[in-house]
Amino acid sequence: MSQAPRIGIVGAGGRMGRTLIQAVQQAGYQLAAAVERPESTLVGSDAGELAGIGAIGVKVVGHLEEVLKDCDVVIDFTAPVATAANLKLCSEAGVAMVIGTTGMNDEQKDLLNQTATKTPVVYAANYSVGVNVSIKLLELAAKVFGDTVDIEIIEAHHRHKVDAPSGTALMMGEAVADTLGRNLKEVAVYGREGHTGPRDRQTIGFETIRGGDIVGEHTVMFIGEGERVEITHKATNRMNFAAGAVRAAAWVVGKDAKKYDMKDVLGLNDI
Amino acid sequence: MSQAPRIGIVGAGGRMGRTLIQAVQQAGYQLAAAVERPESTLVGSDAGELAGIGAIGVKVVGHLEEVLKDCDVVIDFTAPVATAANLKLCSEAGVAMVIGTTGMNDEQKDLLNQTATKTPVVYAANYSVGVNVSIKLLELAAKVFGDTVDIEIIEAHHRHKVDAPSGTALMMGEAVADTLGRNLKEVAVYGREGHTGPRDRQTIGFETIRGGDIVGEHTVMFIGEGERVEITHKATNRMNFAAGAVRAAAWVVGKDAKKYDMKDVLGLNDI
Amino acid sequence: MSQAPRIGIVGAGGRMGRTLIQAVQQAGYQLAAAVERPESTLVGSDAGELAGIGAIGVKVVGHLEEVLKDCDVVIDFTAPVATAANLKLCSEAGVAMVIGTTGMNDEQKDLLNQTATKTPVVYAANYSVGVNVSIKLLELAAKVFGDTVDIEIIEAHHRHKVDAPSGTALMMGEAVADTLGRNLKEVAVYGREGHTGPRDRQTIGFETIRGGDIVGEHTVMFIGEGERVEITHKATNRMNFAAGAVRAAAWVVGKDAKKYDMKDVLGLNDI
Amino acid sequence: MSQAPRIGIVGAGGRMGRTLIQAVQQAGYQLAAAVERPESTLVGSDAGELAGIGAIGVKVVGHLEEVLKDCDVVIDFTAPVATAANLKLCSEAGVAMVIGTTGMNDEQKDLLNQTATKTPVVYAANYSVGVNVSIKLLELAAKVFGDTVDIEIIEAHHRHKVDAPSGTALMMGEAVADTLGRNLKEVAVYGREGHTGPRDRQTIGFETIRGGDIVGEHTVMFIGEGERVEITHKATNRMNFAAGAVRAAAWVVGKDAKKYDMKDVLGLNDI
Repeated sequence: MSQAPRIGIVGAGGRMGRTLIQAVQQAGYQLAAAVERPESTLVGSDAGELAGIGAIGVKVVGHLEEVLKDCDVVIDFTAPVATAANLKLCSEAGVAMVIGTTGMNDEQKDLLNQTATKTPVVYAANYSVGVNVSIKLLELAAKVFGDTVDIEIIEAHHRHKVDAPSGTALMMGEAVADTLGRNLKEVAVYGREGHTGPRDRQTIGFETIRGGDIVGEHTVMFIGEGERVEITHKATNRMNFAAGAVRAAAWVVGKDAKKYDMKDVLGLNDI
Repeated sequence: MSQAPRIGIVGAGGRMGRTLIQAVQQAGYQLAAAVERPESTLVGSDAGELAGIGAIGVKVVGHLEEVLKDCDVVIDFTAPVATAANLKLCSEAGVAMVIGTTGMNDEQKDLLNQTATKTPVVYAANYSVGVNVSIKLLELAAKVFGDTVDIEIIEAHHRHKVDAPSGTALMMGEAVADTLGRNLKEVAVYGREGHTGPRDRQTIGFETIRGGDIVGEHTVMFIGEGERVEITHKATNRMNFAAGAVRAAAWVVGKDAKKYDMKDVLGLNDI
Repeated sequence: MSQAPRIGIVGAGGRMGRTLIQAVQQAGYQLAAAVERPESTLVGSDAGELAGIGAIGVKVVGHLEEVLKDCDVVIDFTAPVATAANLKLCSEAGVAMVIGTTGMNDEQKDLLNQTATKTPVVYAANYSVGVNVSIKLLELAAKVFGDTVDIEIIEAHHRHKVDAPSGTALMMGEAVADTLGRNLKEVAVYGREGHTGPRDRQTIGFETIRGGDIVGEHTVMFIGEGERVEITHKATNRMNFAAGAVRAAAWVVGKDAKKYDMKDVLGLNDI
Repeated sequence: MSQAPRIGIVGAGGRMGRTLIQAVQQAGYQLAAAVERPESTLVGSDAGELAGIGAIGVKVVGHLEEVLKDCDVVIDFTAPVATAANLKLCSEAGVAMVIGTTGMNDEQKDLLNQTATKTPVVYAANYSVGVNVSIKLLELAAKVFGDTVDIEIIEAHHRHKVDAPSGTALMMGEAVADTLGRNLKEVAVYGREGHTGPRDRQTIGFETIRGGDIVGEHTVMFIGEGERVEITHKATNRMNFAAGAVRAAAWVVGKDAKKYDMKDVLGLNDI
């Protein structure tokens, strides 16, 4: 697109909202609007000061309606109920959306799909550019190595995470298993203890580390005789998701009304 | 090919020769012949015992001529003068070759090229499957990330290595630089000390570790905001080169007379 | 100490200030006061909302004097001029301080030393518990390995850092060199390029990685034959400094008037 | 000791035997004798050529009795029956021993203990200097961090290993648990899958990687908020065990008749 996109952020006072404000600045764009719940004490403060990047002259407002006319695209990483309300507003106004909200129910997902028939919407499970690139790399490596190596997937997340392995680790495992014609459910190994016997090459091992406030690290090892190749992704803060979302926002403005994902944004389907 | 290749090893008493004997066994093939210098005290010993894998019923002999009729392909990781003699013998007998000898002069290289008009010859700078795969991965990652990341190449080798960075590190740097349209000679940084100023995104940094008997480790980092992707190759012993050479030997038997490299063996040109 | 410390934070609206507010909560303490420049639009907002942890009922105020009576200790990671003013206030009021401000001139350092004769002050080059532990580990490892290994120090920081190697890397190098009776200035190697010759075991190599927004990673390798030991510290966000500062704040309340560092706080001098 | 030790190697034709011959040379000592089973085709060959380091003028012989008078110390990494016979010979001749044989039964261990009343014997579970140092580092780190971190132990070994976690990983876990007053059997976690809930800080996690021919890698992570410390040991070939055994052999000559372990050799009990 020829002009800088006018980007609005909802949930501007939350941790992800503040990171999105930083990401807009880092990408070289002007923030168009910042919205937070009307009852927050942060309404009225400068969005840049709120994000820790110094005053930028954009006041946080309490309602998206007040500022929607200033936006080409709205980035929404809030909660299902808020997102549903924002989808309706953007659908009516013809404003594009980038949505990172999780936990939406079927009704809310239907609303998202309807909105995408009227205005372009990006909706991705993971906005990290690096994760999306890593999946591509894994497919290529698995294709060339075939059955000549042992494959292990190590991931680490913070101590508060309640499930294992992570969704991203499973997504990586599926990318590898699909390439090799294996069924991940049959070949996955989630722990080793006691007399395990020698390793079966068809298996794919998962090792799950939990501790502190680790944001998210994933390594896939392709282990042969005398050598190994490792593909690693490390997320160190929310900025990687925010930067991906801003990249998606800049990309989606002016596109046809449709639901897109990060593979579309990054052009990975054409490689 | 439908039958197991009959593989002969020259320089069987050297460290690489012994590793090649192990690699033939690990690949599930029968060793056809093992040759060492006629004056070595190892001539007459069992090639399997020599390689530390138990007796296999193949005696080490002192001359390639004695056993050439038993071989479909000869693997040669010796020295230029010996390789030159072996090239002549194989050329006459129509036996394929896989050559990992380094330091050949122009005359010896001419001889190799001539031989490759009469019998198929694999000749590669690096027989590691993992290194060749890694180069492909680097090109793909560089293509998608473009100028949005900082690129750093860290390598580690043993304390006796006299040059820096390693040839493989430079090869990786060139693969990345070529993909991004940069001139590696202009953008490479080989060390940082004192007041360096902020990093220029166009540069590619090399960090060279030297110590102990490290065989060879290379990591390329693509570092963005809040995330990074790392592609790592670790060689832990000669087996990765030996396994690649045996893979090449099995592949080259029955091919047309021509000079091939590992990209041909691995089919990387078609991906 | 028997009671929970009443901790005040100055510079509460800055990035470090907000992280300190989070750290106080994570340590299980109540924040006593939060101060920001009087002209900031953030004055009057709730300190917890500002820090992204939800309202905690403590309003951000514009002057330390307003709230000093509520504090046993003040944590100050601001700037030299502000810190000098705060030192005077705390000295008069007999309130302890934990100071992480960098770049103070001689006059300001004198003021700090004078204050420490009237009230206890912690002043450390690095508040990270992990960094301080790592230094101890390095000294122990160097002592046992002696001259049997090659030592290399790899560090990574963000692209905006203008000096190399990092102060922490140099501190680690000095700890190792001192233990081994070497002079770091004489044995340090900051880059390798071209024909370097074999490695001299007396040298200590530094490899400096720069990219993205990496907060700070340090690895010291002790590389022998067939093995190596690596001691790694990774800082992933300001929380490690903030947590160390809060640990220091809780420790220093009730201590004698004196200048302390993190070795005192952690009891590392007694190990 | 003032003179270079005269070191004999039994099982000289095995992989560990050859590595021990290399280690003797790398330590700057002269090999005194090399013994292999009398029926081996390698008897009569030069021990240096056998080890791949060039002729050294020491012929491999078929019986230890033939060469025992030339030895101050014998290194034995063979099998229980052979080691028992060697213990008797060395006991009678008053020659010191360094024993790395595994799988001895009670009778054979009794014989070892008896021998140690007549001649000095080193007998260690793990001859790696690095592993022994790492245990010390782990105890120190655990002591300072206490309960402020999450502890995870990641290990990797070759695909043929039939048990998990490795003995070394468990030894590391016990060192940490003992320091923290925890019972490893109660707090160890060997895998994570499905809904695990948030991490309990008292637990110690083990993550076991299996693949290729990885010799042995162990990392212990101490993970806090915003930082972590990692202590890593990587064994890349048998040389680390061989070098430790040669260090033990040089140390034990001239010592009192007694059974020693590597902590004695390295002086770790005094730190």
